[in-house]
Amino acid sequence: MKYQFKITGWGYYLPPTIETAQELSKKINKSSDWIISRAGVDERRISNIDVDKMGAIAAQKAIEEKPAPDLIINASGVPKQTIPDTSVFIQKELGYDGIPSFSVHSTCLSFITALNIAGSFINNNSYKRILIISSDRGTIGRNFEEPESASLLGDAAAAIYIEKSNNSNQGVLDSKMNSWPKGTNLTEVRGGGTNLHPQNIKTRKEDNLFSMNGPKVFKFTLPKVQRMILDILKKNHLAQSDIDLLIPHQASGKGVEAYSKFGGFDQEKVMNIVNTTGNCVAASIPLCLAIALEKRIITKGDLIFLAGTGAGISIATAIIKL
Amino acid sequence: MKYQFKITGWGYYLPPTIETAQELSKKINKSSDWIISRAGVDERRISNIDVDKMGAIAAQKAIEEKPAPDLIINASGVPKQTIPDTSVFIQKELGYDGIPSFSVHSTCLSFITALNIAGSFINNNSYKRILIISSDRGTIGRNFEEPESASLLGDAAAAIYIEKSNNSNQGVLDSKMNSWPKGTNLTEVRGGGTNLHPQNIKTRKEDNLFSMNGPKVFKFTLPKVQRMILDILKKNHLAQSDIDLLIPHQASGKGVEAYSKFGGFDQEKVMNIVNTTGNCVAASIPLCLAIALEKRIITKGDLIFLAGTGAGISIATAIIKL
Repeated sequence: MKYQFKITGWGYYLPPTIETAQELSKKINKSSDWIISRAGVDERRISNIDVDKMGAIAAQKAIEEKPAPDLIINASGVPKQTIPDTSVFIQKELGYDGIPSFSVHSTCLSFITALNIAGSFINNNSYKRILIISSDRGTIGRNFEEPESASLLGDAAAAIYIEKSNNSNQGVLDSKMNSWPKGTNLTEVRGGGTNLHPQNIKTRKEDNLFSMNGPKVFKFTLPKVQRMILDILKKNHLAQSDIDLLIPHQASGKGVEAYSKFGGFDQEKVMNIVNTTGNCVAASIPLCLAIALEKRIITKGDLIFLAGTGAGISIATAIIKL
Repeated sequence: MKYQFKITGWGYYLPPTIETAQELSKKINKSSDWIISRAGVDERRISNIDVDKMGAIAAQKAIEEKPAPDLIINASGVPKQTIPDTSVFIQKELGYDGIPSFSVHSTCLSFITALNIAGSFINNNSYKRILIISSDRGTIGRNFEEPESASLLGDAAAAIYIEKSNNSNQGVLDSKMNSWPKGTNLTEVRGGGTNLHPQNIKTRKEDNLFSMNGPKVFKFTLPKVQRMILDILKKNHLAQSDIDLLIPHQASGKGVEAYSKFGGFDQEKVMNIVNTTGNCVAASIPLCLAIALEKRIITKGDLIFLAGTGAGISIATAIIKL
């Protein structure tokens, strides 16, 4: 899979309100040391505005003075509401009218999925300028009676603006995704749809909240992620050392560390912001990308490796040339 | 937008349980004549199995003896649950393992959106065989205190299997979508996400149910649909009479009739099953397509025009050459 495009805009929104491990510890009846050692999250942001407003703030920074995008893709883990999809609410906040908009959902991997779709559309000359927004407010869905997963989640939004490139060696150089339904029950919000509908009397409070068996997810995904990294690098005649920055989904402290511990990447080349942001669901990967671009950790010509695991369970990787 | 592919499989699932206007009339305190004259729906199907099982039955028929798809896209209006997305649950029901899967959401237009995405991926040689499934169980979300919208919804699933074609004049010849966020509140399920979360004490029962202002949607969309049809036909040097079958989203009796009454298409060329199926959300368009293919109403070389309006409000059209 190869899609030629350039990233010409990026933006992110980290809500100003910080919740420390100390503050969270009272809610989940665990010490702050327990939270930090288990989740690897010292603090996370808590949003007081909804996902559409968060996404629009990030998008506005990505757009700046550029022309309006001709396609808007929302690539988030949880929607604002069931119908319509969140993309039109973000468009509304941006003050646009008439721009085709839809949502893509593969939980924490939604951004990688959307980047492939957008890249494919640009390759085919279907669209010229595409805005992708990931905006998640996972802290609303925390189950304080499941302390481990409740320690992970944080709120954030990020947006990327991509355009056609004349450089055939720019964009997604290769990408790969697999989904293994054996793991559907390892990371879930069971409610919110037709299965355990909000009006179904069988739906319990915990069905509407996030549940994850972190250790089982880690065990399930570790060998599969290792294999996928080795395969895609080999296929593209690359080694870990050729990659300028690995951006993993910020699943947990342990999850991010695994890329250097077991994945063969130097620790300083693995972007790690999970201790201050937590797991921001679909927003984690584009948040890292936007921060890395803003801080000029990565610049034109650099090779970026995106990787992550998501509910499903799915795993995705993408090699990006800036 | 032009995507070269061929449709090699199709299937649909209409649940065996029929609910007549007479039966519904007691639930919404309106006569069956009122239901039939307002909604144009004499009867609809009610599913006793969930969207993933419905989708898998349709998909199995589309796949038959063909190889497993290398990508599965769920293109439905409402998910099985919030996380993971429905595609992996459908994959699970199909007995597959490891196939990349994700969901696309633009409510009633999700199938057209997914067909463009799938076509674009096939054009780029990213995937060879893609399965698209739309499965909706709208009857769960009916608000019986809003009789007009409650009269519309029915349950169905449909699946289409597409593959690479060597014929450059086969697949999506052109397509177009626009979204107008001014209409976000005209068709809604306000609950189920971060806005009015199931655990939010402000969330009322009706927020979790489907709400539509049919007359306002009709007024808002009619001139825009007319314009979009004329524009895409003109751009492709086609007239309404060149189209072998128009497949509209089965929004309502009046909504389907508008394509012949105001859209310039002969009534017998407009597929109309709304009286026996109701509005099946995202499943309506692929259901019509699968039935038309099964009954050989359309065959190889025919020109099909897909068109619909969806929550957002969005409008999409696509010209398909079989």
